[in-house]
Amino acid sequence: MKNIKIAIAQRNFTVGDLEGNSKIIVNSIKDAKNNDADIIVFPELALTGYFPQDLLFDKQFVEDNMEYLSKIVGFCKSIIALVGFANKIDNKLYNSIAVIQNSKIIKIIHKTNLSIDEKRYFAQNKNIEPVNIKIKDQNVKIGIEISDDLENNKKEINVTKKLVEKGAEVIICCSASPYSFNKLEKKQKIVSNKAKEFQLPFIYTNLVGGQDDLIYDGNSFAVNDNGDLIAICKGQKEEMNYFKIGKKEEIISFPKINKMEELFNSLVLGISDYFRKTGFKEAIIGLSGGIDSALVSVLASEAIGSKNVYSYSMPSEYSSSHSIEDAKKLANNLGINYTEIPIKNSYENLLGALEKQFEGTEFGIAEENLQARIRGVILMLIANKFNRLLLATGNKTEVYLGYFTLYGDSNGALAPIADLNKLEVYALSNYINKKFGKEVISQTIITKKPSAELKSDQYDPFDYKIVAPLVDEIINNNMTKKELLKMNYEKKLIDEIFELIKKSEYKRHQLVTELKVSEPIILNGRKMPIVNKYFEN
Amino acid sequence: MKNIKIAIAQRNFTVGDLEGNSKIIVNSIKDAKNNDADIIVFPELALTGYFPQDLLFDKQFVEDNMEYLSKIVGFCKSIIALVGFANKIDNKLYNSIAVIQNSKIIKIIHKTNLSIDEKRYFAQNKNIEPVNIKIKDQNVKIGIEISDDLENNKKEINVTKKLVEKGAEVIICCSASPYSFNKLEKKQKIVSNKAKEFQLPFIYTNLVGGQDDLIYDGNSFAVNDNGDLIAICKGQKEEMNYFKIGKKEEIISFPKINKMEELFNSLVLGISDYFRKTGFKEAIIGLSGGIDSALVSVLASEAIGSKNVYSYSMPSEYSSSHSIEDAKKLANNLGINYTEIPIKNSYENLLGALEKQFEGTEFGIAEENLQARIRGVILMLIANKFNRLLLATGNKTEVYLGYFTLYGDSNGALAPIADLNKLEVYALSNYINKKFGKEVISQTIITKKPSAELKSDQYDPFDYKIVAPLVDEIINNNMTKKELLKMNYEKKLIDEIFELIKKSEYKRHQLVTELKVSEPIILNGRKMPIVNKYFEN
Repeated sequence: MKNIKIAIAQRNFTVGDLEGNSKIIVNSIKDAKNNDADIIVFPELALTGYFPQDLLFDKQFVEDNMEYLSKIVGFCKSIIALVGFANKIDNKLYNSIAVIQNSKIIKIIHKTNLSIDEKRYFAQNKNIEPVNIKIKDQNVKIGIEISDDLENNKKEINVTKKLVEKGAEVIICCSASPYSFNKLEKKQKIVSNKAKEFQLPFIYTNLVGGQDDLIYDGNSFAVNDNGDLIAICKGQKEEMNYFKIGKKEEIISFPKINKMEELFNSLVLGISDYFRKTGFKEAIIGLSGGIDSALVSVLASEAIGSKNVYSYSMPSEYSSSHSIEDAKKLANNLGINYTEIPIKNSYENLLGALEKQFEGTEFGIAEENLQARIRGVILMLIANKFNRLLLATGNKTEVYLGYFTLYGDSNGALAPIADLNKLEVYALSNYINKKFGKEVISQTIITKKPSAELKSDQYDPFDYKIVAPLVDEIINNNMTKKELLKMNYEKKLIDEIFELIKKSEYKRHQLVTELKVSEPIILNGRKMPIVNKYFEN
Repeated sequence: MKNIKIAIAQRNFTVGDLEGNSKIIVNSIKDAKNNDADIIVFPELALTGYFPQDLLFDKQFVEDNMEYLSKIVGFCKSIIALVGFANKIDNKLYNSIAVIQNSKIIKIIHKTNLSIDEKRYFAQNKNIEPVNIKIKDQNVKIGIEISDDLENNKKEINVTKKLVEKGAEVIICCSASPYSFNKLEKKQKIVSNKAKEFQLPFIYTNLVGGQDDLIYDGNSFAVNDNGDLIAICKGQKEEMNYFKIGKKEEIISFPKINKMEELFNSLVLGISDYFRKTGFKEAIIGLSGGIDSALVSVLASEAIGSKNVYSYSMPSEYSSSHSIEDAKKLANNLGINYTEIPIKNSYENLLGALEKQFEGTEFGIAEENLQARIRGVILMLIANKFNRLLLATGNKTEVYLGYFTLYGDSNGALAPIADLNKLEVYALSNYINKKFGKEVISQTIITKKPSAELKSDQYDPFDYKIVAPLVDEIINNNMTKKELLKMNYEKKLIDEIFELIKKSEYKRHQLVTELKVSEPIILNGRKMPIVNKYFEN
């Protein structure tokens, strides 16, 4: 095999937008032709967008997607294109790649290793073999695989191996793999090792863009038959990348990843795509003067522009003066819109309406929650009035501890930092100040004791340095109490945290879409029963 | 095969409650021994409760469940017991049935046809064969299958057939199959046909009880080798049922099902189990004077007792006097607690806080929603204060049309009628009046024009006689626009309804647990993307 020019089309598709996605595909093909590419490769399910979920149960949608594919075929005259689409055959649906050449589909490849979510819709490929393609004057056997097909844990079929056994000379993987901490390095290792093991070039094409709670980070790349990097696309951005295989390729090194920069860019992409793809222009945020809402404000400003962000400070009688000052200062630093709406009066008014019912009772959780809910009502009132989208500001640690008010501070359409633990919230805030070379988020916000300020002298009842990683061990790593004891967490604390997580399960069943960044990234997330009497000793 | 006495243990288990479920299992075994049964059969995953979902990722939970099973084994001295549990072998998890005899596990059967939700956790059985058991003086080959193993659509493996090919003389199916309209008849037909086809007795054991959004309806039964019914358990209730196979069985007829009675009993079971299993005693409901909240009040009264139901009428300036009267009368009819809390004052107060921001704007959706949200805040304030559980009162038709206020009337922990369309709400209400022999829900509530009463002269902008079935065609039957046109729905209406459904997807992502009654019953329900630009012509 010699000298084949490949185009990776790392593009940002939108679920359901057959018209728009088709245009992106056709324009990319034109660009690749202008650049004399032999093959252009798109991500998994490029045509439908990833992942369409129950839209795949819509027969018309599937039919339309096949109709659009047939239109795209006509644009592939002097180029080979690998286009992902949903393929219906004999009443079975497949996650497929159409191999198009000379304005004809010459072969269709189906996905073999379906993810759990995909199994709801797709049938599994049973026939793994490379595609024989004539490129210029040579015949090349191309092994095409789709996303999880490159997995090589024992549960899955080793698709690469089977393709190589049947003569594949190069592997092209069309993927839609969402961002998470540390995932990119793992992925690069898997691909490099496979290339080296089987002694062939390996091309990995990934989707870029936000779709609901998932952020696809791009970072498509190619390695030679020694596993050395020969091409790589940017992260979190669209890119057409051209390179050649089958000759002495120029070797480049994998770029060093700044984890915080990657996280920042991913969250910004997740937010901006959510707005762009749902058609919203303006965001509203409740500013407490605390670090969570400060961080969300910075991310939103970066994503949609500070003039489109409307922030509201809604002090109650329990709000400290420094909170209001900190909120105002933050808004000023960012150049976002800022308004103060005191809620003391509304709070007293609503409590007054229940004076008789509450006679003789003491101030408690109900009254604390009421303040958060009044704020939630005010923010939704403004959001509805001016067609703005409300961002929720909770972080992962408090979400799992249930330390938030349902229909109060959890209100919103998107929760940008709900998968960051409290320590990551601090780390990202510090990174932002460093990145912008100034105190965007002031030190007073970063160093003060976290507080919900819903009653006098109230501070968050957690030592986040211990509790934030502990919650992650339970939620992300499924650690048992016994294992946590061995890790030297205190028995009393472990029991308390398990109980808080269990007790708040019903709250999380009603939460907004949260941008996912921590493993395991599972579509629609954790699925715990609400009725659950299990008690671990 | 002759004269074997079977006990069906149609019991109500609780997810996670290993201790409690073990007790139920042991007590049932004792009862069966006292009744000289040869075999006792439990539903699928009896020990863990069905369905534990991500609790199955908790290694300690799985270990504990196997520990509890080993304790149960000791109680099976003079009886054979079929007990469902989660079985870990070599790092793989199976949905299994332990066959216990003489205080030993003599065989473990794994589930072959896993449901989509189960595939997230369980490995598939690869070795289908009957169990050879010595009962009294005879050797019997018992074919054991688990729930979906009895399915016989083409996608699944025909487990029954394979068991019969390997000599099974009787089939016992341990199931956890949730209630839905018309499901029981279909199930009875499948089982009867299989028995007749393979000429052997078929025993079908089902779970009973509510678990989050699903209601398991019991109705376990057995047929002889001609497919004739020889035993049947009650619906929606626990029962130990004893009968003999292998002799001339007495044939009974399948009881006639009153669909409305079945629906009523199922919803009541779903509500009462949710309260019992989460430990709540009291419910609160916002009464609008409309039919939805009236129906939920009746169901709640039946489920937890009318003295435990607290209803609140919260009139605004747009509430009609007959609404308040109707609400009061309903509460009186049911004997539930009733309080009026006018919201006019709070509404004006909150709008006043935004006077400056809203200057020059007109009354609109934002102000309408505000009223619903103030009610939501008041109900949650009372719920939190007195540890009561708020019931949401929306129906399926309005839920899918997005005709409700998020963080307003959708507030609550459980939505008992959110899977009933508006016509079913009327039908069930009429059934209730007939059942109780009096106007529990007054005719004025049933006959008045539905209205949200959030502005002057506002009535629901839908002809529910047309729209309610139309929404069901789209949501439950995945009908396309073209198919609906052929069914003589108007193009304009179809487009409008599709648009409303799509636009409100984000709202449903934040909805409470709804009791499921309409097919397809899928754990965690419909999964549509929020970002979705598909437009069907």
